[in-house]
Amino acid sequence: MTDFFERSLILHEQLRGKIGIVGKMPIANRDDLSLAYTPGVARPCEVIASDASKARELTIKRNSVAVVTDGSAVLGLGNIGPHAAIPVMEGKSLLFKEFANIDAWPICLDAQDVDEIVATVRRIAPVFGGINLEDISAPRCFAVEQQLQDIGIPVFHDDQHGTAIVLLAALLNAAKVLRRDITQMKVVINGAGAAGTAIARLLRCVGHSPNVCVPVDDVIVCDSKGAIHNGRDDLADYKRELLRYTNRKHRTGTLQNVLAGADVFIGVSKGGLLSADDVSKMARDSIVLAMANPIPEIMPDVARSGGAAVVGTGRSDFPNQINNVLAFPGIFRGALDASSCAITEEMKIAAARALAAATTDPSPERVLPDPLDRSVAPRVAAAVAEAAERE
Amino acid sequence: MTDFFERSLILHEQLRGKIGIVGKMPIANRDDLSLAYTPGVARPCEVIASDASKARELTIKRNSVAVVTDGSAVLGLGNIGPHAAIPVMEGKSLLFKEFANIDAWPICLDAQDVDEIVATVRRIAPVFGGINLEDISAPRCFAVEQQLQDIGIPVFHDDQHGTAIVLLAALLNAAKVLRRDITQMKVVINGAGAAGTAIARLLRCVGHSPNVCVPVDDVIVCDSKGAIHNGRDDLADYKRELLRYTNRKHRTGTLQNVLAGADVFIGVSKGGLLSADDVSKMARDSIVLAMANPIPEIMPDVARSGGAAVVGTGRSDFPNQINNVLAFPGIFRGALDASSCAITEEMKIAAARALAAATTDPSPERVLPDPLDRSVAPRVAAAVAEAAERE
Repeated sequence: MTDFFERSLILHEQLRGKIGIVGKMPIANRDDLSLAYTPGVARPCEVIASDASKARELTIKRNSVAVVTDGSAVLGLGNIGPHAAIPVMEGKSLLFKEFANIDAWPICLDAQDVDEIVATVRRIAPVFGGINLEDISAPRCFAVEQQLQDIGIPVFHDDQHGTAIVLLAALLNAAKVLRRDITQMKVVINGAGAAGTAIARLLRCVGHSPNVCVPVDDVIVCDSKGAIHNGRDDLADYKRELLRYTNRKHRTGTLQNVLAGADVFIGVSKGGLLSADDVSKMARDSIVLAMANPIPEIMPDVARSGGAAVVGTGRSDFPNQINNVLAFPGIFRGALDASSCAITEEMKIAAARALAAATTDPSPERVLPDPLDRSVAPRVAAAVAEAAERE
Repeated sequence: MTDFFERSLILHEQLRGKIGIVGKMPIANRDDLSLAYTPGVARPCEVIASDASKARELTIKRNSVAVVTDGSAVLGLGNIGPHAAIPVMEGKSLLFKEFANIDAWPICLDAQDVDEIVATVRRIAPVFGGINLEDISAPRCFAVEQQLQDIGIPVFHDDQHGTAIVLLAALLNAAKVLRRDITQMKVVINGAGAAGTAIARLLRCVGHSPNVCVPVDDVIVCDSKGAIHNGRDDLADYKRELLRYTNRKHRTGTLQNVLAGADVFIGVSKGGLLSADDVSKMARDSIVLAMANPIPEIMPDVARSGGAAVVGTGRSDFPNQINNVLAFPGIFRGALDASSCAITEEMKIAAARALAAATTDPSPERVLPDPLDRSVAPRVAAAVAEAAERE
């Protein structure tokens, strides 16, 4: 593993940037120069000046996304700041290009105040067709995203919704291969941060069919103090908000307490929390999606020995890798193609369903497509664009 | 000319963005994905977290420039706003790539307040190795640039300094072909905006040799009310500042009044101001650099009929085109290569000298290199980097 990380360091030293700019036209003669720059460029400028929406037809806005972070919650490394976050944002930009042909540029903010982040993103928005928020710590990430919903282009916090969408797709296929009704499942989510909150919200509408929204009936979210229930007086607003649609039976106690009898465990917190014994107390043929990285909440073989029928993790060295790259490229591609001004819950559900449907021959060992499958993003994009146009 | 502008519009419709992102490594397998993104990317992140300066060795910061505008003074179109400015900023990014292999990204700000622009640029600075300010109207452009000088990367307003550097190079070669001492010339600059102010400042140090700075002796700047002199009570601060090093003889009157007997006219204001008669009253074998676009202050044939020995304009259809593309790519290339934290007056003078020296066989019809000459930017870059390292 040391060797692996050193290889990554050497790669980054050699590349000095994993992305670059490429010109889409030659500057071979004076005519090229005059058309692309002054004086010819005045003409598209005038057209946009009289109708700002033409920027999507005449400029890179049509295909560009800002990958915006404040460096406050980078990978598992925590608050390492905007400079140290650059390699992650570049990696994200690279994946946007590779999987969805989107031109994404990293914006690493030297600001961690919500108002400053919001003001800055508003001001830089004109050249972008979308904003991918990344690695901004909870609960600030909720306020940042919320306050930016009116800027006229999609603003999407990938650590929340990207993760939630891929988890939901895995859950849809797990339910399918186990021949179970997802809306009847009892789900326990451990972690009330960005991803945990977003998956709880998505599960409100998982049984969606046209004009009907059917929630997963029984969802409990736990934080480090156990089940989030309305008898607790220590809950921040964003956790209290969760009670509008989770823990309707007012269950209390530790993660282990509420996990007993559950069908699904979703771990989006820290590793090594669960034992085979814990899983054995879940319902029969349980589903365990243990996303903590690099050490999952429970190792797959241990979960299976406790009776889990489907196990997924964030790791590429086990089956059922739950990897955001399955979602964000297609989601933004679809939103850009539809000139959408937001990424709605319906678009997210459509993405999850398309992702689940893109899995060939689903089985307990295969509830998601391969992260490198290039056919996935176009399918997700089409579903997202269709959902956007329906709304 | 209508056809030409329509061709530009069609080109922009076809391209939908003159630049794009390109990945610098393949994502062909899980190993690539793990090295470029999680989990491998954690290693360069950690290295930068412990030493932010390593961002230049491990990320795109080494080679990236933000092309920042507020859309307030775009070409000759005026305050057309950030969306309408995108085609120009994209064009600039394209030229950065073409001429200096720099990865430049357009940032078009939805903000025209100096404090807001400054705060925003500060916050987005981490991922960039330099900031090219563009098309920000005077006098706000002076304050914006001034207040950003401490951010640790070069901040350079091209409309000021890029133009001034190319003008100075043209002047150096004009003096050379006319066998005159530039420091002894009487120079009249018409226009006290971004470019006029910057050229007046550069002329303070034009006769520079190591450790000695020799100014052009006699420089007068005119605004729309004529010569700027210390008897005027209508001068904004930035114009009054000019009097520290211009108009030492306290000349008053109109442009035409002060131009009589001058060796050099530099026009950076509006077209059609001068007649052959005006030029005929200048000193013998005068130098006329008439930059107004698209109509110069005086047409080249008219200037020559009035006795001008060297005439330059901003236009590509006349000899001696004074085009910023001769300067900004090499200047930023040099500053990035030297990891410079600013672009100093000395670096600007070095750029102008290198640009003048890069002109093969200078003559009255050829005081600057061809704007498409790819050998220019590397020569300017080398001179700028050398000047940076000297300081």
